[in-house]
Amino acid sequence: MTKTVIYEVRVEFGDCDPAGIVWFPNFFRWIDAASRHFFIECGVPPWQETRQSMGLIGTPLVDTQASFSKTASYGDVLQIHTQISEWRNKSFVQTYRVMRGDDEIMQCTEVRIFAADKVGGGIRAMAVPEEIRGMCS
Amino acid sequence: MTKTVIYEVRVEFGDCDPAGIVWFPNFFRWIDAASRHFFIECGVPPWQETRQSMGLIGTPLVDTQASFSKTASYGDVLQIHTQISEWRNKSFVQTYRVMRGDDEIMQCTEVRIFAADKVGGGIRAMAVPEEIRGMCS
Amino acid sequence: MTKTVIYEVRVEFGDCDPAGIVWFPNFFRWIDAASRHFFIECGVPPWQETRQSMGLIGTPLVDTQASFSKTASYGDVLQIHTQISEWRNKSFVQTYRVMRGDDEIMQCTEVRIFAADKVGGGIRAMAVPEEIRGMCS
Amino acid sequence: MTKTVIYEVRVEFGDCDPAGIVWFPNFFRWIDAASRHFFIECGVPPWQETRQSMGLIGTPLVDTQASFSKTASYGDVLQIHTQISEWRNKSFVQTYRVMRGDDEIMQCTEVRIFAADKVGGGIRAMAVPEEIRGMCS
Repeated sequence: MTKTVIYEVRVEFGDCDPAGIVWFPNFFRWIDAASRHFFIECGVPPWQETRQSMGLIGTPLVDTQASFSKTASYGDVLQIHTQISEWRNKSFVQTYRVMRGDDEIMQCTEVRIFAADKVGGGIRAMAVPEEIRGMCS
Repeated sequence: MTKTVIYEVRVEFGDCDPAGIVWFPNFFRWIDAASRHFFIECGVPPWQETRQSMGLIGTPLVDTQASFSKTASYGDVLQIHTQISEWRNKSFVQTYRVMRGDDEIMQCTEVRIFAADKVGGGIRAMAVPEEIRGMCS
Repeated sequence: MTKTVIYEVRVEFGDCDPAGIVWFPNFFRWIDAASRHFFIECGVPPWQETRQSMGLIGTPLVDTQASFSKTASYGDVLQIHTQISEWRNKSFVQTYRVMRGDDEIMQCTEVRIFAADKVGGGIRAMAVPEEIRGMCS
Repeated sequence: MTKTVIYEVRVEFGDCDPAGIVWFPNFFRWIDAASRHFFIECGVPPWQETRQSMGLIGTPLVDTQASFSKTASYGDVLQIHTQISEWRNKSFVQTYRVMRGDDEIMQCTEVRIFAADKVGGGIRAMAVPEEIRGMCS
C-alpha cells in the first residue's frame, strides 16, 4: 500500500478568472502546498530545519504533466490526494488527484528532486535521503 | 513556417521562494499571459470583445506538460517563444520555450480549447473558429 | 457586540519570499478571502447567487490601511479575526486582525462597496442592502 | 526635485477576478515590483548582492495605505510612478501613483525598512544606509 495524504483547499473568489472558474496556475499553487504537506504528514521536518540539519532546502520540480477534466469555482472545497508513486536515485514521482467529493477536477504527475544550495548560487540535486524515503513509503 | 510570438517577462523578488529561485506556479502564470499575448499579436480581439461578438470567453487549459531545465531568479529577463503547433476540431496545441537569452529555462506543451459559457453555469468547448485559425497559423 | 468571524490560513512555502518570510501581497490575498468568508458565515449567499438575485457581484476595495508587526513563515497557521466596524450609505468599513495564536502579525482596515455591473462595462456602487446589513451586524 | 521612476505593467487575464476587473492584491504585487525597480534604476545593486556585501536582504513593508479610484482590466497598460518622499532613521516612505495614461487608477503610500537577517531567524531593521539614501534622493 502506498501512503496517501489528503490536503484540503477552499477555492476563493480571487482564485477565479473573468470566466468565473479557477485560473489554472492556482491549481499548481495548491499542488505545491499538497506536496510539502505530504512530507510534513509523513513526519519529515520542515525545510527550514532540514536546511540546517542536512542541507536540504526543498523539493523543486523537474517535470510535470496535468489533465483538467472539470472546472471549479469559489465556494468549492477540494481534496488533493497525494502519493509518491516511484523513487529513483536522485528524484521521485509524486502524483495528485484533485477531487471535489466524488468528482475528479484534475490530476497531476510530477518528477521532483531533493535540492541543496550549489556553491556559487543556484541549486543541485541530492541523492534521495534514505530516512525520508523510509518515512514516506 | 509556424507563426512564433515572443513575450518578455521580468522576474521579480516576489516571484521567488525561500530557495531564492522562481516558484514554479509563476511560470504557468507567465505562460498563460504568453498564450493570450499570442492571440493579440496575431490580431485576435481581446476576450472581452469576442465574448460579445461570438460568445468566446477564453482558451482554458485541458492538458499541460512541462520540463524545467535551469533555475531563474529576480532580475532575470525571460523570453517566452510561443507557437500553435497543431489544430484539432475542438482544441489546439500551444507550445512554449522560456529562454533567458540563449539558455532554455523550461518548456511547455499545452492542449487548450476555445470556451463559451454553458447554459446553467460552467463552460463548454466551441469548434475552433476558422477566422481565428487563419489569423494564428 | 459586533459580530466577529475567524478565518484560518496555513502559510505555505510558496507564500514566502527569498527572505524566508511571507511576501506581503499574500496577506491581502488572505484578507480578501476572510472578507468573503465573513459574509458567508453571516448567511449571505455567494456572489454567484447574489449576481442573479439582486445584481450584486462582489465587494471591491476602495481604501485600505495595514500595519505589519511580526513576520510569519511557512508552517505557521494564522487566524484572521474579521468584523464590520461601520456601515455607511454606499460603503462599509471591514477590519482584520491577523493572529498566530496570541501574536498579532498584522492588522488591516478597509473601506469596501457593494458592486453591481455598470452599463457599458466596469462596476458601480449599490446602496448597502438592508438585509445584508442585518445579517452581518 | 524628488527622483521619480516609472515601472510599466501589462494587466493580464489571470490578474482579473470574476467581476472582470483587477483583483486588488495584484496591485500590491506590482507595487512591490515597482519598489525594487526604483532601487535598481537608482543604481542600487540587487538584494542578492547587497546580502553578500552589507547584509541587506530587502525592504519589507511596515505600513501601507492605498486608495482605489478607477478599475482596470486585462489589456490595460499601467504606469507606476514611484518616489521616496521621506527618509527616517530606520525606515523610509515610498509613494506610488498607478496611472493608465492620464487616468489615476490607485495610489499607495508605504513605510518600509532595510532588513537584515536576525540571529536565530526572522529579520531586523538596519539603519538607513547612507550610500543608498544618496543614490535614491
